[in-house]
Amino acid sequence: MTSSLIHPDRLFPSESRTLALSREIYRTTVSLPIISPHGHTDPAWFAQNESFTNPADLLITPDHYVFRMLYSQGLSLDDLGIPRADGSTDNPPPEAVWQLFADNYHLFRGTPTRVWLDHVFAEVFEIDEPLTSGTADHYYGVIDSALKTPEFRPRALFERFNIEFLATTESPLDTLPHHGALKNDSWPKETNRRIVTTFRPDPVLDPEFEGFAENLTELGRLTNEDTSTFAGYLRALENRRAFFREHGATATDHGHPTARTAWLDRADVEKLYDAARTGAINAPEAELFRAHMLTEMAGMSADDGMVMQIHPGSHRNHNQPLFDRYGRDRGADIPQTTNYVDALKPLLGRYGNNADLTIILFTLDETVYSRELAPLAGHYPALKLGPAWWFHDSPDGMRRFRRQVTETAGFYNTVGFNDDTRAFLSIPARHDLARRIDAGFLAELVVEHTLREDEAYELARLLAYDLAKDAYRI
Amino acid sequence: MTSSLIHPDRLFPSESRTLALSREIYRTTVSLPIISPHGHTDPAWFAQNESFTNPADLLITPDHYVFRMLYSQGLSLDDLGIPRADGSTDNPPPEAVWQLFADNYHLFRGTPTRVWLDHVFAEVFEIDEPLTSGTADHYYGVIDSALKTPEFRPRALFERFNIEFLATTESPLDTLPHHGALKNDSWPKETNRRIVTTFRPDPVLDPEFEGFAENLTELGRLTNEDTSTFAGYLRALENRRAFFREHGATATDHGHPTARTAWLDRADVEKLYDAARTGAINAPEAELFRAHMLTEMAGMSADDGMVMQIHPGSHRNHNQPLFDRYGRDRGADIPQTTNYVDALKPLLGRYGNNADLTIILFTLDETVYSRELAPLAGHYPALKLGPAWWFHDSPDGMRRFRRQVTETAGFYNTVGFNDDTRAFLSIPARHDLARRIDAGFLAELVVEHTLREDEAYELARLLAYDLAKDAYRI
Amino acid sequence: MTSSLIHPDRLFPSESRTLALSREIYRTTVSLPIISPHGHTDPAWFAQNESFTNPADLLITPDHYVFRMLYSQGLSLDDLGIPRADGSTDNPPPEAVWQLFADNYHLFRGTPTRVWLDHVFAEVFEIDEPLTSGTADHYYGVIDSALKTPEFRPRALFERFNIEFLATTESPLDTLPHHGALKNDSWPKETNRRIVTTFRPDPVLDPEFEGFAENLTELGRLTNEDTSTFAGYLRALENRRAFFREHGATATDHGHPTARTAWLDRADVEKLYDAARTGAINAPEAELFRAHMLTEMAGMSADDGMVMQIHPGSHRNHNQPLFDRYGRDRGADIPQTTNYVDALKPLLGRYGNNADLTIILFTLDETVYSRELAPLAGHYPALKLGPAWWFHDSPDGMRRFRRQVTETAGFYNTVGFNDDTRAFLSIPARHDLARRIDAGFLAELVVEHTLREDEAYELARLLAYDLAKDAYRI
Repeated sequence: MTSSLIHPDRLFPSESRTLALSREIYRTTVSLPIISPHGHTDPAWFAQNESFTNPADLLITPDHYVFRMLYSQGLSLDDLGIPRADGSTDNPPPEAVWQLFADNYHLFRGTPTRVWLDHVFAEVFEIDEPLTSGTADHYYGVIDSALKTPEFRPRALFERFNIEFLATTESPLDTLPHHGALKNDSWPKETNRRIVTTFRPDPVLDPEFEGFAENLTELGRLTNEDTSTFAGYLRALENRRAFFREHGATATDHGHPTARTAWLDRADVEKLYDAARTGAINAPEAELFRAHMLTEMAGMSADDGMVMQIHPGSHRNHNQPLFDRYGRDRGADIPQTTNYVDALKPLLGRYGNNADLTIILFTLDETVYSRELAPLAGHYPALKLGPAWWFHDSPDGMRRFRRQVTETAGFYNTVGFNDDTRAFLSIPARHDLARRIDAGFLAELVVEHTLREDEAYELARLLAYDLAKDAYRI
Repeated sequence: MTSSLIHPDRLFPSESRTLALSREIYRTTVSLPIISPHGHTDPAWFAQNESFTNPADLLITPDHYVFRMLYSQGLSLDDLGIPRADGSTDNPPPEAVWQLFADNYHLFRGTPTRVWLDHVFAEVFEIDEPLTSGTADHYYGVIDSALKTPEFRPRALFERFNIEFLATTESPLDTLPHHGALKNDSWPKETNRRIVTTFRPDPVLDPEFEGFAENLTELGRLTNEDTSTFAGYLRALENRRAFFREHGATATDHGHPTARTAWLDRADVEKLYDAARTGAINAPEAELFRAHMLTEMAGMSADDGMVMQIHPGSHRNHNQPLFDRYGRDRGADIPQTTNYVDALKPLLGRYGNNADLTIILFTLDETVYSRELAPLAGHYPALKLGPAWWFHDSPDGMRRFRRQVTETAGFYNTVGFNDDTRAFLSIPARHDLARRIDAGFLAELVVEHTLREDEAYELARLLAYDLAKDAYRI
Repeated sequence: MTSSLIHPDRLFPSESRTLALSREIYRTTVSLPIISPHGHTDPAWFAQNESFTNPADLLITPDHYVFRMLYSQGLSLDDLGIPRADGSTDNPPPEAVWQLFADNYHLFRGTPTRVWLDHVFAEVFEIDEPLTSGTADHYYGVIDSALKTPEFRPRALFERFNIEFLATTESPLDTLPHHGALKNDSWPKETNRRIVTTFRPDPVLDPEFEGFAENLTELGRLTNEDTSTFAGYLRALENRRAFFREHGATATDHGHPTARTAWLDRADVEKLYDAARTGAINAPEAELFRAHMLTEMAGMSADDGMVMQIHPGSHRNHNQPLFDRYGRDRGADIPQTTNYVDALKPLLGRYGNNADLTIILFTLDETVYSRELAPLAGHYPALKLGPAWWFHDSPDGMRRFRRQVTETAGFYNTVGFNDDTRAFLSIPARHDLARRIDAGFLAELVVEHTLREDEAYELARLLAYDLAKDAYRI
C-alpha cells in the first residue's frame, strides 16, 4: 500500500487546485467494485482455481504488450519462451526469462505497461524497490513464493481485486465448459460475483477466418441445424446466441477488419454464403459478406437484447515471417485508418434509430473520435462509444478520448471503462488508471468552471461503475 | 452579471500566472463590439422586430445541437415539438417541452451547449440557479415573461449584445425582402449597426440539390437571363451576386460535400451543365460540375471582390429514416474525411496567387489543421483559415485549432471568430467563449516566454475584432 | 546570454513544480555537444570557411520557412530577392530586403521561426531589443559587421555552437569535393569534429525526377557501370553508396511521395527499369518502380550497414505558377495523408525482422503517430521513429510527437533530434528548443509520478545526445 513504486497522486494533473480536487474525486471511486464487461482472461482460472505457475508464465509470455516491446529492441522471442505456431518453445528457465525482462525494464519508461506492472508489483506483491537487473532475483523470489500460497489463487485475487462482474470472450464454437462449471459452483453466488462469456462470432462470420468451412460444419453439429443453407446458418447463429445467453452473456463482440456494413437482398447474400462455405469467395465478396452479417447481428441483437460491440480497424498479423513462425497474437496487429461514416450507414439506417438496441463502437484510429464517432453517437439512439482501446488504453490515450469525444457526444453516450486484458493481475491496475484519469479530467472541468463540483462527483461514479453496468445490461 | 451559473474565470487556464494574465488579456477584449460575419439567424427578426414566442420555440426546437443530444439518448423528436418534413408537429405544449429539456439537462455536461446555455440563462435572463427538473417551471416563467417585454425584442437584444455587424445567409433565389426593408430602415444607421446577407449558391451550383432544375428556371426568371445556356447561367450568377452586394453582402459561402475543384474546357463544362439542367447527370459528373463551378466562383470573386468561404466535409442527412420523416437539419449531418491538397490544386493554381482575393477555408476534419490547411494558408496569398467550426466550435476544439494551426500559419492567416449560429441569443455567449479561449492561449504563450505581453494584447484585439473586419472586408 | 529577447525559462511548462524540475533537467543537457545527423547545410561553408555575405543572404533568402510566410501575406518574392528558376533576381539591396522582413516580423508570432530567430539574434549576435521596423537598421548593422569578423566564419561558429557531428545531404551524382577537402583538412581532427555526407538517391531512383535518364547516364559514367541494364544499375548504386561511405556517410535518405514499397520479380522490375530509363513509364509504374527500389535500398543497407531514412508524404511544388517562375523549394511543398501500414508491408516482411538494420521513419502526417508509426516501431526490430519533422519541428509539434508516440513505442524506438535545416545559424536554436521541450515532457512524467527523477535525467541525455549517435551509428 505504501510501496514507493507507486505514488498516491500518480496520474493526476499537476496544478495545485486541480490536483487537490482530483484526489477528492478519486477518493469517491477508488473503492467501487470493478465492472469488467469486456476482456480476455481464461475462464478456467476461475472455474478450476489452480495456482499460477511462475512469474514469467504469469506476467511476460502471455502479454503481447510486454514482449512486443522487447522484440522491437532486438530481443529474441525464443529466449523469452514465446511458443511457436507449432506449440514448441525453447523452454528457457522462467528465472532466465525474468532476468531478461528485468534487464530491459527501462524500455517501458513512458508506457502504460510500466504503470500497470509497477501497480501489480506494489499492490499485489507489496514490493518496494524498482525492477532492475540487480533486483530481478528478489522480484522472482517474492512473486514465485506468493503464487504458491492460497491468497494468490485466482478466486482469492478476484475477491481481493473487488471484481463484481467479469466477462470473458469465447468463440461461438466453444462449449463453454468453464462457464458451465461456474454456473453450478457456489463460489460466485456466495461472494456475489458474476463471470460470464461474450459471443464473438468472427470465426463463423468471416469467410477469411482460418478454417471457416470447418467452423460452419461444427456450428451445424453443435446446433443441429443445416448450415449448408443460409437459413439454417442464421438459425444456428440464433441458437448459439441463446446458448451464450444461458451462460450469462449480455453482449456480442465483432472484430472485423473494417466497419463496413451492408444489407443485401436475400438471394445475393445466399449466393455469397454458398461461395464462402465452399471456399469460392474472393476478398471483396468476403468483405461484403462480413458487412451484411454485421447488420444481421444487429437485427438479432434488436430481437434478443444482446449488446453489440464493434471494434474494427486492426491489420492482423502484419508481420508475415513472424506469423509463419509464431502464429497469431504476437504483437504484430497494427491499426489502420477506419471509416465509420459511410461504413455504418446501412446498419444504422436499419437499426440505428432503435433506442432499445445498444451498439458500442471502438476504434484504433483516434482521428475518428471528434470527426466521426462523437457526432454519430451524439445523434443515433442505438450508438454508444466504447472507451479508448488497446494502444490507446493509456494515460494520454484516455485524455485524448475524453477531450475529443465529450464536447460532442457528452458523457452519457459513453460506456465507462473496459480493461480488455488477458493479464488478470493488471485488471485493478487498469481500472485504477482509468479512474485517476477521469478524476483528473473532471477536476479540470470544475477548475475551469464549466462543471459544478457536485456534478463531477456524480459523473465520476457513473464513469467508474454505473455507465458500464447500464450499457452492458448487467 | 453576478449569477452563480457562470464564473468570471471560466475557461481560463488553471495555472496561477497564466490565469492572472488571461484575466488581464480578456479584460481588454470583453467590451469590443461583436463582428458576426457568418451565421444563420433570421433577418425577419431584425426587420420586423417582433417578440420571440416562448422559451421552447426560442431555445430548443430550432437548435439541432440541443435536440440531437436529447434524441441520441432516446427522447422522441415529436415530444420535443420538432416539425416533421410535412410541417406537422404533435404540438406539445411549450411548457412540457421545456420540462423534458430540463429533466435531461445533465446530458449536456461537458459540452459547449451547456456553456452557451448557462451564459444565456445568467447573462440574458439573470437566472441564478441551475436548470433541473425542479427549477424548470421557474425558468420557464422568468424567460417567458421577459420575452413579452420590449427589452427582449430582437433589436433591443441586438443593441444590448453590442453587435456591430451581422451577416445572415441566403439562397441566391431569395429576394431578400428583410434585408431590403432594413436598408430603408433608420434603426441600423441611427444605432450604427449593419445587418447584411451572404450569397450561398449551393441550390444553383449543386446538381444534386433538391429541385436543381426548377432552381435554374427561377434563377433565369429573377435575372432575366437565359439559364438554358451555360453563358446565360454564368451571367445570371453574376447578376445575383451583384444583387446580394446591393444588400450588403461582402461574402459568398459554399457548402459542397467535398473540397474538390476543377477547371474544365468550356465545351466539357457546357456538356455537364446541359446534363445537370436536364437531370441526366450522374454522381461523378455532378461532383465534377460542382468542382468546376467552385473555380468559377473564385474567378467571380477575383472580379467583384466578394470574399469566398468554402466549408466542405459534411455528409448531410446521414440518417435516412429520420430524413424521410423530419427532413433536413435535424442533427444528422456527420463530418467525413476531407482532402484539401489535391482537391484545391486546380482552383489555387488559377487564383491562389492573387493577393487581392480572399478565400476562407473551414473544415470539420481536424486532422487537416496541421497537415494541410496551415501549410496551404501559410503559403498561398489568397488563402486564410476560418475558425474551428460546428462540432469544433467548443473550448477544446478551439484550443486544438490554435495549437495545430498557429505554428505553421501564424495568427495573420486566420480570420477571427465566426459564431455560425441560428440561435440568436447564443451569439454573445459564443463570442465570449472564443475571446476567453484566445486570451488563455495568448497568456500561455507569454508565460512560456515565446510572446511578449504587449504582443498578446495586440493579438487579442485582432482575434476578437480586427481580423474578422479585415478578412470579410467590412 | 542575458539578452531580454529570450528568457531562461522559455518553453518550459508553467506549473511551478514542473517548471523547477524542467530547469534542473535542462541544466544537465544544455552543454552537451550537438549531434546533427540529418540536415541540408552547404559543405562548402566548412570546407572553404569564407565569411557569410550579409544578413539578408544569410537569414532570409535561403530560408523558405521565412519567405513562405511573407509571401502568404502578399509580399512579393522578387522584392525579397528570391531567385527565379532561370537564376535571375531583381537584386534588391540587402538592406531593403531586411527592412521588409523587419516590417513584417509580427507575422511570425506564435511560430517556431520566431523562436529560432530570436535565439539567433540574442545568442549569436547578442542583440537585446525586439526586431521591428524601427530597429531594422540597427539589426542590419550589428549582424553585417559581425559577419565580417573571423569569429563569425563558418568554422568558428561550428566550434562556438559545440557541434560534434554534422551530416549534410547530397545527390548520388555529387562528387563530394567539399567532403573530400574536409577529409584532408586538419581542422576537423584537431577540433574533434566530424562533417559527413548522406546518400540521397532520389534523382536516380525516381523515374519522375527531373532529368532521370540523364542522371542514369551520369551514374554510369561516375561508376564505370553499364546503367542500361538493371544489374549494372544496381552495381552502380552499390558503388556510389561505397563512395559516400568513404566520405563519412553513415546513412541514406529517401524522400518519395509515398511510403509505398514492393518486391517485384526480377523480370518485372527489369521491364519497369527499361521503361523508366527510356521515358516510357507512366505514373503508376513509376510509383511501383520507386516502391521496389526502396526495398532494394533496404537490402543494400542490410549488407553495407547504412542507416536508411524514409520521409514520404510531401506533395512537392503544389503551386504550379510559382514553380514555373521560381522553381523548387519555394515553400510550396504541402503535406498529404500518408499510409504506412500497407505501404511498408513488403519491405518490412523482407527486412523488418533484421535487428542489425536500422530504418528511420519520418512523417508529415501527424495522424499516423499513434495509429501507425508507434505500433510499427514498437514491434519491428529494424524500425525506429525520426523526430517531429519539418512543419512539426516546433514546440507543440514536438509535444504532440512525444505524447502520441511514447506510450506505444517508448523512448528507445526513437532517435533523438534532427534539425533538418539549411539555416546553419539556427542549428543551436533548434537543438535548444528540442532539449527544452524534452526536459518539460520528462518533468511532467516525473511530476505525475510515472517516471522517477533519476530516470528523467538518464532519458534527457539519451534524447539530447546518445540516441542520435547510436541510431545513426556515429
